[in-house]
Amino acid sequence: MTAMNELVVLAERPTTIIEPQTCRLETAPIPEIADGEALVQVGWLSIDPTIRTWMDDAPGYLPPIGIGDVVRSGGIGTIIESKSDRYRVGDTVFGTVGWQRYAVAGEGQAGMTVVPEGVDPLLAINVLGVTGLTAYFGLLEVGNLRPGDTVVVSGAAGATGSTVGQIAKASGAGTVIGLAGTDEKCALLVDELGYDVAINYRTDDVRAALKAAAPKGVDLYFDNVGGELLDIVLAQLALKGRIVLCGGISSYTTPGRPSGPSNYLNLITRRGRMEGFIILDYAKRYGEAQGALLTWVLEGKLKHREHLVHGLEHAPEALNLLFTGGNTGKVVVVV
Amino acid sequence: MTAMNELVVLAERPTTIIEPQTCRLETAPIPEIADGEALVQVGWLSIDPTIRTWMDDAPGYLPPIGIGDVVRSGGIGTIIESKSDRYRVGDTVFGTVGWQRYAVAGEGQAGMTVVPEGVDPLLAINVLGVTGLTAYFGLLEVGNLRPGDTVVVSGAAGATGSTVGQIAKASGAGTVIGLAGTDEKCALLVDELGYDVAINYRTDDVRAALKAAAPKGVDLYFDNVGGELLDIVLAQLALKGRIVLCGGISSYTTPGRPSGPSNYLNLITRRGRMEGFIILDYAKRYGEAQGALLTWVLEGKLKHREHLVHGLEHAPEALNLLFTGGNTGKVVVVV
Repeated sequence: MTAMNELVVLAERPTTIIEPQTCRLETAPIPEIADGEALVQVGWLSIDPTIRTWMDDAPGYLPPIGIGDVVRSGGIGTIIESKSDRYRVGDTVFGTVGWQRYAVAGEGQAGMTVVPEGVDPLLAINVLGVTGLTAYFGLLEVGNLRPGDTVVVSGAAGATGSTVGQIAKASGAGTVIGLAGTDEKCALLVDELGYDVAINYRTDDVRAALKAAAPKGVDLYFDNVGGELLDIVLAQLALKGRIVLCGGISSYTTPGRPSGPSNYLNLITRRGRMEGFIILDYAKRYGEAQGALLTWVLEGKLKHREHLVHGLEHAPEALNLLFTGGNTGKVVVVV
Repeated sequence: MTAMNELVVLAERPTTIIEPQTCRLETAPIPEIADGEALVQVGWLSIDPTIRTWMDDAPGYLPPIGIGDVVRSGGIGTIIESKSDRYRVGDTVFGTVGWQRYAVAGEGQAGMTVVPEGVDPLLAINVLGVTGLTAYFGLLEVGNLRPGDTVVVSGAAGATGSTVGQIAKASGAGTVIGLAGTDEKCALLVDELGYDVAINYRTDDVRAALKAAAPKGVDLYFDNVGGELLDIVLAQLALKGRIVLCGGISSYTTPGRPSGPSNYLNLITRRGRMEGFIILDYAKRYGEAQGALLTWVLEGKLKHREHLVHGLEHAPEALNLLFTGGNTGKVVVVV
């Protein structure tokens, strides 16, 4: 019996979270590689909120995933066959592998990054991957973090959020405040991840708690969530405050247009700025960021946590964890 | 009979536009000036949307106008008595005079700017005043206008908007598109004020017209209005597009919180930026801007229009014109 590829394809477009009929497990022959390509055996999948946005039939920074196509996803694997000078059999690679057991690594733009030997794949998929890079450039470049800044992070116990808080502390921020949805997550933020204050947005009076924790206002808000929390922070923005738009996870699984931030005119009175970014734009500077991130990891200033889900077929449920608040740290599917 | 001062005071806080009971005309003795002060006979009042925001009991960049206090307003007048080395009798001054016939010019922060001899007071109150300065710094500094940019301006036939479009053309913008509320205003924009395209937001299909006029998207949106137009432009923002928040006039006279821009997450996919500003922050650079503005006026590149309303007692109705779309160009009350 020949080994086969297994793929999770998009069967129909979801309107809320992913339902049983959204995806379908298929089998197909293992791809043949051409000259300049290599075959990747996928080991781990990076489960990111943006995957859900690609499932919608809406224009975005990448085209929507086609119906019947493998679900687009970052991931890490091992080169098991190569007709390319760029990949050697045995190399660990990071790239857009998709939700499947075998993927093709091409050259040039479609290429994958070889992970240096000795780097833990879970470190590569989390802190040194899209998650850490997003936190790094979002906070330091888009947000222009300044020493002493009061920083607020939503989705603070998620993959990106837990990294943002630690980078902020390592980079000289003042008070760093995390918003999370359970007391366990809040405890983790303060006890292990260096946050000064954690606010449970489901049970606390966020307006009052934020006013107490940030009496001079919020200098920098790293927003993964959107919704009502964005409005609360806008109302308490400090002069020249910056809002880094990383995501709007509170609206991704709600059909129709989200309600916009009704306090946005505070950007005028506070002379504030709200700015979005996509990590792909910083591709040329990944090396610089990865060096800084690895240094913080080795110094013990940047801890990483992964929430492991076992089995390719469970990738859809793994993605749902991001929208139900079921994860702490980076969700990774062990293929 | 001794001459008296007349003042328009805030009698009660309005909830929508200004109603007859909102303001009250009062008489009082002409103020006595102390050492270091001068007495100003007010000639013209600058009627700006921001005055309406000061009437609300809400935190802003300046404290609300107190009940019973003269309505805060910029204006121009003549020094008729002076105990200050800074002002000579006969000087024309610009500053926060309030809706009254006689005001006191102090020194230092509470001081007024002396308008150079030979400058038309209507030029000083419009293009060289807050209106022109707002257009200049908003477009060039906050908006970071670049050669060839496709620029959209809302409230384009208003005081600020009509100036923004002309500065954009004089500074190398590509297509400049104005949004206005009547066909007469749209004709004025294209025929006299150098706009390339005008869209009547009340009668045109703005989405389709904007797509036709800006097929590659909007690089810079100078927003005086907010509301649904902001959402439409967000949906058609170009990569790295900038939205300059100058005002939200569509919401100033509506009680409660405005609906926010529900397409704000497009700032992520387009890597866009939305930023507010207050012209007071640029006070140290007014001279530089006024030099450039005056040059454009003298070169015939920057036309100014004033919508004159005669009589101090009509200042409240003059302010309402801004919210009913009744004006074209800068609203000025001739005291």
